Amino acid sequence: MTDSTSDTPSEFRPEARSPRGFADKRASQIALERRLVETVTKVYEDFGFEALQTPAFEYADALGKFLPDSDRPNVGVFALQDDDDQWMALRYDLTAPLARFAAQNWDGLPKPFRRYAFGPVYRNEKPGPGRLREFIQCDADTVGTDRPEADAEIIALAVAGFKAAGVPALLRINNRKLLNGLLTSLGVTGPDQQMAVLRAIDKLDRLGVPGVELLLGKGRKDDSGDFTKGAGLADTAIRPVLDFVMAAEGGAARSLVLQRLGHVLANFPEGQAGLEDLTRIDTALTALGVSDSAAVFEPSIVRGLEYYTGAVFEAELLLETRDEKGEMVRFGSVGGGGRYDDLVARFTGERVPATGFSFGVSRLAAALRLVEGDKANAARGPIVIINFSESDMGAYFQLAAEIRAAGLAAEVYLGRSGMKAQMKYADRRLSPAAVMIGGDELNNGTVTIKDLDLGRDLALQISDNKAWREGRPGQVTLPRAEAINHLKSIVKND
Amino acid sequence: MTDSTSDTPSEFRPEARSPRGFADKRASQIALERRLVETVTKVYEDFGFEALQTPAFEYADALGKFLPDSDRPNVGVFALQDDDDQWMALRYDLTAPLARFAAQNWDGLPKPFRRYAFGPVYRNEKPGPGRLREFIQCDADTVGTDRPEADAEIIALAVAGFKAAGVPALLRINNRKLLNGLLTSLGVTGPDQQMAVLRAIDKLDRLGVPGVELLLGKGRKDDSGDFTKGAGLADTAIRPVLDFVMAAEGGAARSLVLQRLGHVLANFPEGQAGLEDLTRIDTALTALGVSDSAAVFEPSIVRGLEYYTGAVFEAELLLETRDEKGEMVRFGSVGGGGRYDDLVARFTGERVPATGFSFGVSRLAAALRLVEGDKANAARGPIVIINFSESDMGAYFQLAAEIRAAGLAAEVYLGRSGMKAQMKYADRRLSPAAVMIGGDELNNGTVTIKDLDLGRDLALQISDNKAWREGRPGQVTLPRAEAINHLKSIVKND
Repeated sequence: MTDSTSDTPSEFRPEARSPRGFADKRASQIALERRLVETVTKVYEDFGFEALQTPAFEYADALGKFLPDSDRPNVGVFALQDDDDQWMALRYDLTAPLARFAAQNWDGLPKPFRRYAFGPVYRNEKPGPGRLREFIQCDADTVGTDRPEADAEIIALAVAGFKAAGVPALLRINNRKLLNGLLTSLGVTGPDQQMAVLRAIDKLDRLGVPGVELLLGKGRKDDSGDFTKGAGLADTAIRPVLDFVMAAEGGAARSLVLQRLGHVLANFPEGQAGLEDLTRIDTALTALGVSDSAAVFEPSIVRGLEYYTGAVFEAELLLETRDEKGEMVRFGSVGGGGRYDDLVARFTGERVPATGFSFGVSRLAAALRLVEGDKANAARGPIVIINFSESDMGAYFQLAAEIRAAGLAAEVYLGRSGMKAQMKYADRRLSPAAVMIGGDELNNGTVTIKDLDLGRDLALQISDNKAWREGRPGQVTLPRAEAINHLKSIVKND
Repeated sequence: MTDSTSDTPSEFRPEARSPRGFADKRASQIALERRLVETVTKVYEDFGFEALQTPAFEYADALGKFLPDSDRPNVGVFALQDDDDQWMALRYDLTAPLARFAAQNWDGLPKPFRRYAFGPVYRNEKPGPGRLREFIQCDADTVGTDRPEADAEIIALAVAGFKAAGVPALLRINNRKLLNGLLTSLGVTGPDQQMAVLRAIDKLDRLGVPGVELLLGKGRKDDSGDFTKGAGLADTAIRPVLDFVMAAEGGAARSLVLQRLGHVLANFPEGQAGLEDLTRIDTALTALGVSDSAAVFEPSIVRGLEYYTGAVFEAELLLETRDEKGEMVRFGSVGGGGRYDDLVARFTGERVPATGFSFGVSRLAAALRLVEGDKANAARGPIVIINFSESDMGAYFQLAAEIRAAGLAAEVYLGRSGMKAQMKYADRRLSPAAVMIGGDELNNGTVTIKDLDLGRDLALQISDNKAWREGRPGQVTLPRAEAINHLKSIVKND
């Protein structure tokens, strides 16, 4: 029971800072992300998905390599050895833990098993602006059905989630079986050549059709003179691949894309399975009320085709806005998913079909903040009761308790600063009102209430400093019994 | 784009299991913990506390030794070395990160800084039954005021939080300055002797006054003959310490405890500061409407006295209940806190007074489950639309979308099992209803709806298997247009 600070001053003073790529979140950001997660998970529950939480750690061998963007197992994770020498790692996504959970509990689960999850994931990567090593993901997956309608439900759920959250998004859908089938029919079966085709298609946005055409064939020389070797397809193979990739051209409706793909694939039977899947997804989406403006077919999407085994979806924010510097910001992809049928097989050897969607909560929150503006998302502080005298604390606390009982947030200022600093405190907390119970008020059975928002607004109209002090904008003194109702009306008008 | 499962079967099949001391949470537990956190944090916001989230990792030197129950710095944490060789560790509580945050951002914070936080914390300890290595804490702290009224607000907030959550709890309050002052006045100033006094007092529950008396003096021999050396106080010192410890005897009200302590400490001026603090806490608690049945003074509480520098609080659940085996369960302590004025000094050298409270979310959720029963906390599944035929999926999905639009959860069964398995699925999900749209229904423009809860209840009354099959309890066929209203009435009655 010695006083450690005064008696044994510590010589070493660590610097107060967070590890690189880890960030604190303040109230307004937390409120926004919380609202987002609550809104979206309500939608997920309406779709019949149940909540599941897995722990932060998994055994490293159970995590395996499920990260779509990395070829290196167990690179990019935070791993440490347990005291029994087993390696554990922090989860880098919510899919690998789902695989472990499903394999571990398969017999006891209702099937198909529909679960959603949200929580932090960890990537041991180089941090950068907007690129943290800890961030929140939110996932929904259906495990145990190979029906394309399950893909459609996941897409509809993503669409409904974005809509409920108030962010305009477009789901772009492809199916690995389509291109797989087409390439098989064309005799392109080597993994390296298939990969080169994918890479060529991925450049459609940047290089346009002529550039992709060169990259599908012998190769392409860019403006700097650098030559990129092509996929080496024969001319007779390049045409159908280009037709395939262009099937969504001109913002075509899903039914038109299906029609065009039907033409392209007419002579390539191996692509029929993918086309049938896509047709059934379209039927289900239409029945679910998901229009062409919310979900489209995009054969040129190749991102994730390596990872997913069937349908692939990508969510793009339809949001062009300007940042603080007035520069145009396109948000682009905010989520994605698809069908992955190898999920549980790693553990059990038994193939279990699954499909799911994942989005980044912080990224979507950043988009929401742009849509709604900072002000809409500012965290409002409590009503602040000014602290004039230690001997009157009882009166302050009684009023604070009454205000809270009326459903409003309130606090008694508990620092030791004077009136001016207390008003500044209330202002910084974005409090709706400050309440003053001084000697006069106590004698007269009154309270003085200052509407801080109104005060701020009125202050803008008063240029004369003296008039400002005398006018006491937004401030009224009224009987104690009327305090709660007046405060309610102030908060209601905010 | 090769098919990794069929083409390159993995030889190594990891076992699907979680690391020891880490657990999955299913829907009902998640819903309960979520409700608890939402309820409590709403109370915290009403008290003017703002949300703060710090990352999972801190630099190990920033975490330091703040763990009340451990003398060993950086033992008991999960630590790893970053690629710049700095040691990072997962937070073991929410207080140490608050210290780092406050030191880092002190100039820019509204002061006093009132923040709440909840989230997982990690202890690298031996796991056991009910003792996990990852668990959720929820904290509220006020940083930057030495006023005892800030302690009172924290206590009132804990009381209000437990009340809102529906768990009966009692806050027991002590103040380190009391015993500190008394011992100083008695000339007991050596840390070892002070510690021996604390240990003796801590045994009051188990050994009663005579046992404590022996341990305050020369020592005590227990029933097995083992001798425990005592604190070695003189007889003239033992009496006031016992009087002090017994001041709350007989469930005394706060005012009576203050009176008794006044007598005990009358001749020991060093205890007056603690007594004055406690008196002001009592005044504030009374003004805040916190009665003696919710918060009491307990001079015999020593837990945390080493860690805290002033007031100490402990929350005890007033809940005696029986577990599944019929055994009596006393929950005991579910949270605690106190005043710790050395928080930020580690970083800045500047002493910043702080006071706070922390409780374990999972532990409190377990208590809530005992109060409310498992059934009240069961996670209900969606309305399940039975899947008869692939060709009618459009009709199923349309109805699912309509049900969701009406604000109810619904899903189309998407497995490939028959009718019986589908009904079993709905049953296992605890779905309120199953909807059947077969050929007859489609022809007649009707739907058949089975009230599953009603069906379960009625089934209990039917002993004849044939009557059961023919009676189809709780099942009605009605026009498609009436489906939504009927489903609404079923869900409403649940």
